[in-house]
Amino acid sequence: MRLATVLVGASTRAAAGDDDGWVVLDERDAQALIAEPGWRVRVEAALHDRERVRLEPEAFLTPMPRPAKVLCCGLNYRDHIVETGRAVPEYPTLFAKFADTLTGPVDDIVVHDTERLDWEAELVVVVGAEVHRATRDEARAAILGYTVSNDISMRDWQQRTLQWVQGKAFDGTTPVGPVVVTADAVEPREGLRITCAVNGETMQDGNTRELVFDAADLLAYVSQITRLRPGDLILTGTPGGVALGMPEPRWLRDGDIVTTAIEGIGELRNTVRFE
Amino acid sequence: MRLATVLVGASTRAAAGDDDGWVVLDERDAQALIAEPGWRVRVEAALHDRERVRLEPEAFLTPMPRPAKVLCCGLNYRDHIVETGRAVPEYPTLFAKFADTLTGPVDDIVVHDTERLDWEAELVVVVGAEVHRATRDEARAAILGYTVSNDISMRDWQQRTLQWVQGKAFDGTTPVGPVVVTADAVEPREGLRITCAVNGETMQDGNTRELVFDAADLLAYVSQITRLRPGDLILTGTPGGVALGMPEPRWLRDGDIVTTAIEGIGELRNTVRFE
Repeated sequence: MRLATVLVGASTRAAAGDDDGWVVLDERDAQALIAEPGWRVRVEAALHDRERVRLEPEAFLTPMPRPAKVLCCGLNYRDHIVETGRAVPEYPTLFAKFADTLTGPVDDIVVHDTERLDWEAELVVVVGAEVHRATRDEARAAILGYTVSNDISMRDWQQRTLQWVQGKAFDGTTPVGPVVVTADAVEPREGLRITCAVNGETMQDGNTRELVFDAADLLAYVSQITRLRPGDLILTGTPGGVALGMPEPRWLRDGDIVTTAIEGIGELRNTVRFE
Repeated sequence: MRLATVLVGASTRAAAGDDDGWVVLDERDAQALIAEPGWRVRVEAALHDRERVRLEPEAFLTPMPRPAKVLCCGLNYRDHIVETGRAVPEYPTLFAKFADTLTGPVDDIVVHDTERLDWEAELVVVVGAEVHRATRDEARAAILGYTVSNDISMRDWQQRTLQWVQGKAFDGTTPVGPVVVTADAVEPREGLRITCAVNGETMQDGNTRELVFDAADLLAYVSQITRLRPGDLILTGTPGGVALGMPEPRWLRDGDIVTTAIEGIGELRNTVRFE
């Protein structure tokens, strides 16, 4: 099953889809939908009963618009770690973003006061149930599904101090979407190709089977620290190929089109705008 | 003026006070109060008209219960920086906590799975108006007031990776309160004594005049990155005297009483409990 938040006229609605297309639901967004007990049975009924509609790519918004917690994992792709000569980490490196950091799958990424703007294609884990101090199996059962993100980074701000958040949390700079594919329909551990292209040129080309800490690992780990709830997000880190790793970095420029895709989930297409 | 969130019977209420005592208001907490236009005039009228009540220390809860953003500044006390031989930083070191990280001014601090639990007395800036890409003067005008916090830190978790948040954001471990003193009534730049004692023994004894980045600096800086709104919090860093800085650290133990105070604002008194 696929879940989304879509624009219908002037308002937003939850939508559910499968291979036959989409149905628009009554809830204002996918986060409101999954907060309701019994939502899955009702959505399955709607997919059976309701008329299918075609939704244009421009209709899709960020699926979970107000997560209370957005946690991100740093260095987490085994091939990229080996490539950079580092040791495989014992613990996940975590930092936070805010709900305000997120933007939609086709929105412009509007930035200011940065000269070192970089891309980071990432798999996102969407939390589907309250989870606190969970085992790996409990965490796995609490995963609603997966979506795509680009952890756009202001490297100059990120590297001003030891802590990264100021280069990672500019408002409206992290696209997330376009859909959440539920965990019964996709398994990142089995290997999903993850790519980022700039103006059509592939910059990152990784595979989610290379994750050191997978979705269940990360959710279980974070849940030792803080309780997560439906709609909270965990960004799982990026594979090799970011500008920062180039001998002569090719930073993002005004007008660049960043395309971020994960096989079997979906694609983001965002244009960079400098204010 | 002082603002608080207090327990009245089984529910919570906003309260306002001055030298003559407290009045209990109709709003459910101080954050709901300050979100309303014209709240200040109404509170001043209530302080003039309503009957004063006496509130026990146990009645005070964390004043802003659901900030969307809690930003914290690292190394920020000039005397402590000089003492440790570091250079005075050009930019503030920022990290984030969550609303769930906060707890009340007399609540137990309940922790688990840590062997290196430390204290960090901190001045908190409480945001009173929406603020985005503000100048220092605009930021200054958007400060509601100040309160007290202790950025209790799980040093073992904090030092597992380069990013600190996992050692700083255990649920319910950062006491904040007991009151917000409005910015017209107190000026940290003029110098407020800030202390932390463990079981009555003073461990930290600093002064807010030593802040490298003061309240307006930090709010203006953070507002370049993300829009802040009424009730959001900025923790401004801690002076010297934490356990981590001791040749033989005296980590917090089960039953320890941590008292955190800022002159002219108030005092937190929390007992540490290991689960």
